[in-house]
Amino acid sequence: MKKIMNTAAHFVDEMLEGILAAHPDRVKLCTGSNRVILNAHPPREGKVGIVTAGGSGHLPVFLGYVGDGMLDGCAVGNVFASPSASAMAAMIRACDQGAGVLCLYGNYNGDKLNFNMACEEVEFDDIRTRTVLVMDDVASSPPEKADKRRGVAGMVYAFKVAGAAAVKGLDLDGVAAAAQMALDNTRTMGVALSACIVPEAGKATFAIEDDEIEIGMGIHGEPGIEVRKMMTADQIAELVLEKLMNDMPLHAGDEVSIMVNGLGATPLEEQYIVYRRLHKILTDKGIKVFMPHIGEFATSMEMAGLSVTLMKLNDSLKEYLAAPASTPFYTNANK
Amino acid sequence: MKKIMNTAAHFVDEMLEGILAAHPDRVKLCTGSNRVILNAHPPREGKVGIVTAGGSGHLPVFLGYVGDGMLDGCAVGNVFASPSASAMAAMIRACDQGAGVLCLYGNYNGDKLNFNMACEEVEFDDIRTRTVLVMDDVASSPPEKADKRRGVAGMVYAFKVAGAAAVKGLDLDGVAAAAQMALDNTRTMGVALSACIVPEAGKATFAIEDDEIEIGMGIHGEPGIEVRKMMTADQIAELVLEKLMNDMPLHAGDEVSIMVNGLGATPLEEQYIVYRRLHKILTDKGIKVFMPHIGEFATSMEMAGLSVTLMKLNDSLKEYLAAPASTPFYTNANK
Repeated sequence: MKKIMNTAAHFVDEMLEGILAAHPDRVKLCTGSNRVILNAHPPREGKVGIVTAGGSGHLPVFLGYVGDGMLDGCAVGNVFASPSASAMAAMIRACDQGAGVLCLYGNYNGDKLNFNMACEEVEFDDIRTRTVLVMDDVASSPPEKADKRRGVAGMVYAFKVAGAAAVKGLDLDGVAAAAQMALDNTRTMGVALSACIVPEAGKATFAIEDDEIEIGMGIHGEPGIEVRKMMTADQIAELVLEKLMNDMPLHAGDEVSIMVNGLGATPLEEQYIVYRRLHKILTDKGIKVFMPHIGEFATSMEMAGLSVTLMKLNDSLKEYLAAPASTPFYTNANK
Repeated sequence: MKKIMNTAAHFVDEMLEGILAAHPDRVKLCTGSNRVILNAHPPREGKVGIVTAGGSGHLPVFLGYVGDGMLDGCAVGNVFASPSASAMAAMIRACDQGAGVLCLYGNYNGDKLNFNMACEEVEFDDIRTRTVLVMDDVASSPPEKADKRRGVAGMVYAFKVAGAAAVKGLDLDGVAAAAQMALDNTRTMGVALSACIVPEAGKATFAIEDDEIEIGMGIHGEPGIEVRKMMTADQIAELVLEKLMNDMPLHAGDEVSIMVNGLGATPLEEQYIVYRRLHKILTDKGIKVFMPHIGEFATSMEMAGLSVTLMKLNDSLKEYLAAPASTPFYTNANK
């Protein structure tokens, strides 16, 4: 195992210390918890709070999106492990500006269990919460069981849309509806060429041969749909786009945002080669692309591979996507 | 070899097509050359032009910094190979707004040879040029032969400073002096944990054992100073910082910007763990850190490892570093 770290036990805390040391003008720790990150700029009174939580090992997800125009807080777990309910409750309290708090997070059992406990706990403080689950990974469950799907890179679009809706002044139900609208129109699928190494385990999360690609892999190394012999960039783009569009049909005149998300070790060059083909197929079908996002948005540490996310746009989603945002890892760079 | 591409022969052109398809609002091709990228927003008349060039395989370097507040143009070569002199000449002509053009690029023989030819060629068009070479890699040559040093991630600071000086309205000599001042105060050193794969070669550029780290590796896999057994993140930070500060002494009261640059496959988590230690050592010495840059700025495709760059600041360099910039890969995210 070659990882640039000190000890596995301190991996997450030292990463957090690094982020806080680098970005003190943008993020800060929540009083009473060294695993909760808040926006350093207090939101205005009456703005709906938006929080998320999840395991570490996916930077910029989750905490990298805490900042102006996106999230107000993020509770951070160990690598691939949920943070505690008490950390989540402290975060929700810190992020309530009197208008309630949206809990927007991936559909994983640990996170759900702990967020549900945290939301019950803050009810005693008369803090209203709403929950919207991200379940954009089409490879993780068929359409008839879409409520079993995992949340992956599409959550970044949901953070962006919900954040802009909250800044615009929508109330809690309105912000939750905006996040849900984004997610109803968002689908993701990924492919993996190599595994990642969880620091505490010290070995690869799964095995894959030197000439193979796994289709539909999850961001914690959950098994995909199938393992194939290595494919070309165009074949990958075509296969993934077909799966996404089977799940969410698109037609001439539609407009989408595309996210090509490197999982950690895939060169930007390769991501743009895939984007080239996606853009060509969609454009040939008369589908317009708005604000593509290409880079690393939701990773699995050193996993090689990428995911493709489509968000089908309407006027509201376009407005929210294009609204300003400024966080340590997201500044509307593709606007 | 597992690379997400179609054929090695089309790797660079398809990457460029992807970038142009993704960012048509920011970059465009130069008329007459499909290997020269220009800012889509024409610079104002009388602004000094700033251009660079170099081999592909280092995204965001080089072309990713073409845009408002940084570069006006970039000529793109094959992977790790210089572009042609004729492409460079076409670029210089396109980027001259009547005030001359600064050629700002890494100290590599192929690039120097071709840029020199291009600059001679455009003299016939009465276009004035100045050249500033980036040679920030302290591991590549001792201080007494500093003119033999390679240019690596420090060039990004030079692009930023020169770009801001040109926007401010300095003339060609002034912009060249600003770039040189940035570079005189900039030092970089990298470590590599794994090699990268040049598409046309199809195999790793060098061999390194599973428990080893190479200190001082270049971004094309040029040999470093020594190979050691794998080190902790803190040891890496301490070793690299010591080498940088031996070459460019820093004292209490000094102010620096730090760039921790992932070479391609190194997780952001690990980069922040290294940043944590760098920040602590400098802060303990009374050295202040301004606008740290952590992420992928100058890569070697899928190479694992990172480099650390220090730029010692003065009031001018701080002003230029903090000035607005907007390119496909750089938007002052850490400001």
